[in-house]
Amino acid sequence: MDSQQFREFGKAAVDYIADYLETVEERPVVAGVAPGYLEKLIPEEPPQAGEKWQEVLQDVDRIIMPGITHWTSPHFHAFFPTASSFPSIVGEMLSAGFGCVGLSWVASPAYTELEVVMMNWLGKLLGLPEEFLNCSEGPGGGVIQGSASETTFVALLAAKEKTVRDIQKLHPELSEAEIKGKLVAYSSNQSNSSVEKSGLLGSMPMRLLPVDEKGQLRGDALEEAIRKDKEQGLIPCYVVANLGTTPTCAFDKLEELGPVCQRENVWLHIDAAYAGSAFACPEYRYLMKGVEYADSFNFNPHKWMLVNFDCSAMWVRDARHLVEAFNVERIYLKDQHKGLAPEYRHWQISLGRRFRALKLWFVLRIYGVDGIQKHIRHQISLAQRFEELVRGDQRFEVCSSSMGLVCFKLKGDDALTVKLLERVQQRKKIYVIAGHFGESHVIRFAVCSRLTEKRHVDYAWNEFASQADEILGCKVERKSDISIEISNARCQKINDIEKSK
Amino acid sequence: MDSQQFREFGKAAVDYIADYLETVEERPVVAGVAPGYLEKLIPEEPPQAGEKWQEVLQDVDRIIMPGITHWTSPHFHAFFPTASSFPSIVGEMLSAGFGCVGLSWVASPAYTELEVVMMNWLGKLLGLPEEFLNCSEGPGGGVIQGSASETTFVALLAAKEKTVRDIQKLHPELSEAEIKGKLVAYSSNQSNSSVEKSGLLGSMPMRLLPVDEKGQLRGDALEEAIRKDKEQGLIPCYVVANLGTTPTCAFDKLEELGPVCQRENVWLHIDAAYAGSAFACPEYRYLMKGVEYADSFNFNPHKWMLVNFDCSAMWVRDARHLVEAFNVERIYLKDQHKGLAPEYRHWQISLGRRFRALKLWFVLRIYGVDGIQKHIRHQISLAQRFEELVRGDQRFEVCSSSMGLVCFKLKGDDALTVKLLERVQQRKKIYVIAGHFGESHVIRFAVCSRLTEKRHVDYAWNEFASQADEILGCKVERKSDISIEISNARCQKINDIEKSK
Repeated sequence: MDSQQFREFGKAAVDYIADYLETVEERPVVAGVAPGYLEKLIPEEPPQAGEKWQEVLQDVDRIIMPGITHWTSPHFHAFFPTASSFPSIVGEMLSAGFGCVGLSWVASPAYTELEVVMMNWLGKLLGLPEEFLNCSEGPGGGVIQGSASETTFVALLAAKEKTVRDIQKLHPELSEAEIKGKLVAYSSNQSNSSVEKSGLLGSMPMRLLPVDEKGQLRGDALEEAIRKDKEQGLIPCYVVANLGTTPTCAFDKLEELGPVCQRENVWLHIDAAYAGSAFACPEYRYLMKGVEYADSFNFNPHKWMLVNFDCSAMWVRDARHLVEAFNVERIYLKDQHKGLAPEYRHWQISLGRRFRALKLWFVLRIYGVDGIQKHIRHQISLAQRFEELVRGDQRFEVCSSSMGLVCFKLKGDDALTVKLLERVQQRKKIYVIAGHFGESHVIRFAVCSRLTEKRHVDYAWNEFASQADEILGCKVERKSDISIEISNARCQKINDIEKSK
Repeated sequence: MDSQQFREFGKAAVDYIADYLETVEERPVVAGVAPGYLEKLIPEEPPQAGEKWQEVLQDVDRIIMPGITHWTSPHFHAFFPTASSFPSIVGEMLSAGFGCVGLSWVASPAYTELEVVMMNWLGKLLGLPEEFLNCSEGPGGGVIQGSASETTFVALLAAKEKTVRDIQKLHPELSEAEIKGKLVAYSSNQSNSSVEKSGLLGSMPMRLLPVDEKGQLRGDALEEAIRKDKEQGLIPCYVVANLGTTPTCAFDKLEELGPVCQRENVWLHIDAAYAGSAFACPEYRYLMKGVEYADSFNFNPHKWMLVNFDCSAMWVRDARHLVEAFNVERIYLKDQHKGLAPEYRHWQISLGRRFRALKLWFVLRIYGVDGIQKHIRHQISLAQRFEELVRGDQRFEVCSSSMGLVCFKLKGDDALTVKLLERVQQRKKIYVIAGHFGESHVIRFAVCSRLTEKRHVDYAWNEFASQADEILGCKVERKSDISIEISNARCQKINDIEKSK
């Protein structure tokens, strides 16, 4: 393929993406295929001779599209959002076009340096303590990792090495292996699976501690767990606090956990993967009170800040702990600029690095602070509308509502909620998933897509309410005006359908 | 930004990439900036209001381009190649356009299923044993990871968990921590820094064993190291064999290492990050003789197979060892398809996954097997030409030549070679880096760019020869015809320059 053909292919792909996003709302949000569907559509071996790009692009429609669950659809309300925006897509394009690997500063200085500055921009946007920023005097700094999972694990490894060194100073008679065999980590039982996985991968038991009735990890629970472990001769090493848990978007009490970690010399990592983006709006920063106790802080612009996956922002109070855990020098990587610009390969697992700062730069400039704040506030307002709709229907109850996430259920036996969820999932008009709130089964409704508007929230509510009608029989008692208005519209639609039969 | 603006911005970016790649040869291959250059060109904070995309794209030229070291330039001969091709760039674009996250089969079935089939295509293309493929009856399979570093580490973690279980069966009295404290890993002292790093991150001492005069790790060296460790009560766990080392592209003797690993019940991982792509050409498969002993095999299509970074292909003989090491189940990730399609999140560190199979599919279809083979053979032939040029000049010696990599030096004291390299690096006409061959300092010359042609190899040789003239004085004795032809052309050019002064 020569560059003229690329111009044609590339522009056809741009149109394909634009057409796709203009029509994504009308596509069934959840893929309707059965496992193994794709291998029936595709040869068992690669073609001997090259094919035309036109054929390949047609096959995207024929083979790939049926198997896509549309995360960008305004009817996608599962998991948490994954960000996608036009400026970010173009950032990814150019990054691929440059085709460099930022394995050291000299391997492409712009890769490292734009990341340094972007991590400052982001940190200021969120109102993080200055000591975390690359532009601060001290040893703190920010870096882009691939995912929150990776970041939680990277911080665990740094905490592990730091603790071994700290303990060996006090007890030179203990071997590294003896110390490592005694280390323990802590998080809440509401943490993302990746937190438990980081303990598994790092050979460090991860205690999943009980939370309060709001789903928050409190200082006393941590204190008690640490006390018990120390009595057993174990060594507390690492705490992962959540700002926005996956099940209900609860916020752990940093101002209680922080002092415990400080007193016990335990590394405090903050996982704000989803909700961290909200700190771009000053009115939500009270939720990170106590952040100054953190050793590391992580949030994903690729979740809620319009930057395409993958772009996970991590700051550390003292980057030397990363470098000491990760640094293996070799002659072919040597360069003359050590100390003047960070060598990010020592801050992460992999040697190679993509140019992820570029899409971040594009998003922050083309949206601006105003645009980012508007996006966050708009999505929260949509969740609040949904919450109001649920509260307006006496058959339902809202279990939790925080940021863009509402967890709710049908009153009464859990089986009703499970049945409702099953029906809605089978119908595939919207995509939602199950959750837990305490002992209850709930439905997790997240505002995910950049394209979601009020009418899509209303559409989703209609879906739940109408299926509840089917399950419970049509004994609706609604309280709020919005709810009545929407349910009237729905009844109208149902009547229209009935008439047309 | 609305979708009409995206069409304009996206197409302008396509043209930007095409223009860039059409002119990359003329750009200085190594960035000429000093550390900290970028922060002087960019505001300290993100803009409050959004900016126009035209301004941002202009700033790519003004701010980013000066800091790019051009890996796609035909004059880039450092490290190993990183792949870049037009079909792959478009694959990345579409993947960003879809904006999904493949965290489970159901999250977008096409993401998982295309990867399953592509890993079969790739495995067949390389002639790997069938038991590694997803389409085989057994528990083997392939997955795309982000990098060889990640893959080496993932395999180490799987090996670690497997060994703990194996040992606990024999010695139930030993605790997990006791066993983990005794595990040892092995590789050659020619391995990439990421191999040593995997040991560091996985808390497993990595013995870097001596190699033979060809840079190959041999069975007896491994056997001896294992024997010594077992005498100390340690437990051999993991071996990383190289097919194509980073310093000289040497191939470890798998048919010797394999039986040792089998006998000692040690996990054998093969790192063929760069050279693995060559197995697409049957004439090079003899170099992987013994691959049937491997527990895991890795190569990077993003190095030498025209697929943009990141795309690191990993196969395992028994995927259950990965799943057992990595699996943490949670309710929000549950789905009904377990067993029918792999849940790749249990094969890797992160939960989220990009749609990397798409660019692989584009490359394999648009190039075809013929196109891939032609690319590999062409690049090897260019390295052979370079080798011949070096051999034709009696002042130089070739230390090693393998695949697309030639290591060479000036005869005599190492200081001469160091001086030559420094001059060439300072002049920035081409980009090469230092290496070691045994105790000698050498220059590593790799054919990297897809755009490199015979004339660029000749240009590079001219650069070395002319700088050697300067260092040594003009006492050239050349042997080969090519060398004489090129050196005549060079002298002509030098004369022209002299005349024009």
